[in-house]
Amino acid sequence: MNPPLAEADLPALQVGDYTLANRLIMGTGGITDLDALERALLASGTTLTTVAMRRYSPETKTSVFSMLERLGIDILPNTAGCYTVKDTVLTAELAREALETNLIKVEVIADEHTLLPDVIETLEATEQLADRGFIPMVYTSDDPAVALRLEQAGAAAVMPLGAPIGTGLGILNRHNIELITSRASIPVVLDAGIGSASEAALAMELGCDAVLVASAVTRAQRPTEMAVAMRMAVHAGYLSARAGRIPRREHAQASSAFAGRISPIDELT
Amino acid sequence: MNPPLAEADLPALQVGDYTLANRLIMGTGGITDLDALERALLASGTTLTTVAMRRYSPETKTSVFSMLERLGIDILPNTAGCYTVKDTVLTAELAREALETNLIKVEVIADEHTLLPDVIETLEATEQLADRGFIPMVYTSDDPAVALRLEQAGAAAVMPLGAPIGTGLGILNRHNIELITSRASIPVVLDAGIGSASEAALAMELGCDAVLVASAVTRAQRPTEMAVAMRMAVHAGYLSARAGRIPRREHAQASSAFAGRISPIDELT
Amino acid sequence: MNPPLAEADLPALQVGDYTLANRLIMGTGGITDLDALERALLASGTTLTTVAMRRYSPETKTSVFSMLERLGIDILPNTAGCYTVKDTVLTAELAREALETNLIKVEVIADEHTLLPDVIETLEATEQLADRGFIPMVYTSDDPAVALRLEQAGAAAVMPLGAPIGTGLGILNRHNIELITSRASIPVVLDAGIGSASEAALAMELGCDAVLVASAVTRAQRPTEMAVAMRMAVHAGYLSARAGRIPRREHAQASSAFAGRISPIDELT
Amino acid sequence: MNPPLAEADLPALQVGDYTLANRLIMGTGGITDLDALERALLASGTTLTTVAMRRYSPETKTSVFSMLERLGIDILPNTAGCYTVKDTVLTAELAREALETNLIKVEVIADEHTLLPDVIETLEATEQLADRGFIPMVYTSDDPAVALRLEQAGAAAVMPLGAPIGTGLGILNRHNIELITSRASIPVVLDAGIGSASEAALAMELGCDAVLVASAVTRAQRPTEMAVAMRMAVHAGYLSARAGRIPRREHAQASSAFAGRISPIDELT
Repeated sequence: MNPPLAEADLPALQVGDYTLANRLIMGTGGITDLDALERALLASGTTLTTVAMRRYSPETKTSVFSMLERLGIDILPNTAGCYTVKDTVLTAELAREALETNLIKVEVIADEHTLLPDVIETLEATEQLADRGFIPMVYTSDDPAVALRLEQAGAAAVMPLGAPIGTGLGILNRHNIELITSRASIPVVLDAGIGSASEAALAMELGCDAVLVASAVTRAQRPTEMAVAMRMAVHAGYLSARAGRIPRREHAQASSAFAGRISPIDELT
Repeated sequence: MNPPLAEADLPALQVGDYTLANRLIMGTGGITDLDALERALLASGTTLTTVAMRRYSPETKTSVFSMLERLGIDILPNTAGCYTVKDTVLTAELAREALETNLIKVEVIADEHTLLPDVIETLEATEQLADRGFIPMVYTSDDPAVALRLEQAGAAAVMPLGAPIGTGLGILNRHNIELITSRASIPVVLDAGIGSASEAALAMELGCDAVLVASAVTRAQRPTEMAVAMRMAVHAGYLSARAGRIPRREHAQASSAFAGRISPIDELT
Repeated sequence: MNPPLAEADLPALQVGDYTLANRLIMGTGGITDLDALERALLASGTTLTTVAMRRYSPETKTSVFSMLERLGIDILPNTAGCYTVKDTVLTAELAREALETNLIKVEVIADEHTLLPDVIETLEATEQLADRGFIPMVYTSDDPAVALRLEQAGAAAVMPLGAPIGTGLGILNRHNIELITSRASIPVVLDAGIGSASEAALAMELGCDAVLVASAVTRAQRPTEMAVAMRMAVHAGYLSARAGRIPRREHAQASSAFAGRISPIDELT
Repeated sequence: MNPPLAEADLPALQVGDYTLANRLIMGTGGITDLDALERALLASGTTLTTVAMRRYSPETKTSVFSMLERLGIDILPNTAGCYTVKDTVLTAELAREALETNLIKVEVIADEHTLLPDVIETLEATEQLADRGFIPMVYTSDDPAVALRLEQAGAAAVMPLGAPIGTGLGILNRHNIELITSRASIPVVLDAGIGSASEAALAMELGCDAVLVASAVTRAQRPTEMAVAMRMAVHAGYLSARAGRIPRREHAQASSAFAGRISPIDELT
């Protein structure tokens, strides 16, 4: 289903000096075999996929990494599993050396039970990484004040959660996400919480510039179809935001008369 | 953006003996000029568009009607503006004669302030219209018990509202819509209330078979782009429902280790 | 905790020619022993309690009925278990004869799986019961158009559901409840769906005149404490509605400066 | 309306070595005259009221301060208007000297537009104030990871917001508040966002130990009645939480048969 119009295209997004061609960033966690992952990645149309550096070792630069290379999908290394500034910076440096990219998804987790970001450590890590020339894309809470501080600290993109990782609870606080997107000068990527296509579209309608999904696709019953759904939903949400939706009203409103008609076509609905 | 997969296609929907090729039904109310309407209709990819018969007169079979004919879009005449069974049936008969179609969108309104359907009159009208050989597609409240009675009375499709017409409040009661779709043997079309793409996708995820939008497109700031957004959202929602979303959890869950890997790639996110 | 003010009292409510002293109506279903039920009823402060006539027989006018008589709590017989107009009217007549009251809670259920009201049968039953001199308090869906028709048919009170019976899902569609209360000339009693005190308070804030709870109290882990909670919540909600809440704003607002002060005390919060 | 039962009492709350007799903490901002404020405070039953130290000067220890003294209401000085750790600590020291209390409500604001707390500065200020022997009650975001760090830093109570100050949007993210209360070893006080009684009750049901309201009362159309409503709602919510509500179900459930009855009374509702 090609959008029949030039104005319906989805433009690329600039993140620091990296150009993100597609607005759906994928994660690879949760899928059970490499072939299924490959099919889902292709179906998603993603051009950037995040993988954890936690247990990376040079001799294992295989499987997922080589698959992504073969598919021409860029790698966004992440620091998942890090709890401190020091570990995060070390992991980022390792990633840069191993993968030859300045992109880094900064994840500093507060505890293993909630997997919530520790925004204090995250802020400090972001500052150090920006100073070292990285392009930090920073996983964070949905706190609008923190998002602004991350931007000031050098984040190239902020990635607020919609809900805790893996819960599929969607976007719990739309007000906060809207506050973040309305004030940010850098891209905002909704990260974590999304479980279905409508939630991905909603993220874009709230002003996000891109969406990251992992388990919503990889753990769906049919990952490939969910990947297509997410891809289309992100695009639909982008257009929906740009098209300027009707205001919400408390009271019903009939569709108005048809302008200029000689007679009939003024209808409700 | 073509879905790269056969399984990602959006199949046609059977409504009585009518085959609906596309799952996005459009209404025409609220737009200010015919050219803009034409562009929006084309962008939406719709194959069925509803128009009110209320003030139809033979000499005015012009403008919208002839445009739809030219575009090859089928017409779903509706009985908007009717408050009684008798008026509704008369309007339906007029529509059948004028437009040579058994399709009729049954709308019997309780009052002009809320534009809510009067389900008592609607049920009776549906029964009579089914007896007369119509294919009644019936606008109704989101009451699951009423939806079932409409099916028993001969409705070819039930069209519950998400919220009052023109409010753009989305789907106020997801529980009811899910109850309707889980019990219906006929198609369920979400009608009224939708204001943005994410809400159209949500309707499909709740099990609806199609979505009808009018003012959400025609009154958007950029109708054509919203039309594309809605088209993609309906498709995305259909796939999302079929793909089997992850369950909602109260607690975070890390993406599990990558099965069968030699080493690294077990990540969070 | 006595409200320290006359204006904080909870006035009686007129339902037809019946005066309801307290705004919390109780149901008796779901409790496991008579003593616990008695404690909960007393704690609730209720003056009107609904009991099903379904299996009433003269020789069994015992237990609950005699307890309620002893406690001075009025009985609101209900027609739970009825699926047709005929059964409903017969049950109401039986109740009037047995209990010597014109009060009747009209319940006509669509099916045993959802326990949703069948509004078509309900409307017809209400009309017949009003003609026979009953004071019909009518359990119904949250459809505002139906509520208005019930009033026109002679209902003394409409009792819309917040959510299906026993689900504890609260008030699924606040918009509908507000639409009902803003247009009704008769009392509106929220019936079914409520699970906790905040939801009972919310019902009152939406403009309901009273609340009916059964399993929320009788199936709570500590029914007596939940009964007190509900009683206070209904009172709080009534006052909250009358006190005129602050408007909802999208943007933060500091508490303004203290008027007339000589100096300091202008604070945030 | 006295709760008729000992088990329905609302026990005092221990905050550090301060004993909070009533669970409704009041703010004084937003009211237009001292008499109206006095009536509202009395009606609320509050025993602790927060006032801003921002522009305190010795010669102005009048009006509100002396009124609170006269009424026997304890003062919780707050640091509203502070943007940095240094200002916050200085303000707290001034408060301690002037008011002879170790209680301090820590508020460090990120910016004047959102009035959101700056959690980075807040954490540092909390640590310093705890070291100096204060009893810090800390206004914060609803980020559960931050709440835990505040506790570790020496907070005597955490006071997460439900929504930005003065918006009256209620509790935007119930999931976060429940996560905070389920993990905290110190009292949790819901602060900011509440606009009506049902929202105060909900805060308690989510596990909060107390609620702070200011403009919800002082800016209500009838502050005194809203004060009573809030007082009862907090009590109701406390009991409701303790009583153990029924679980939420997707499907309807009839009230079960009455145990031990000879015959009739098994009812729905």
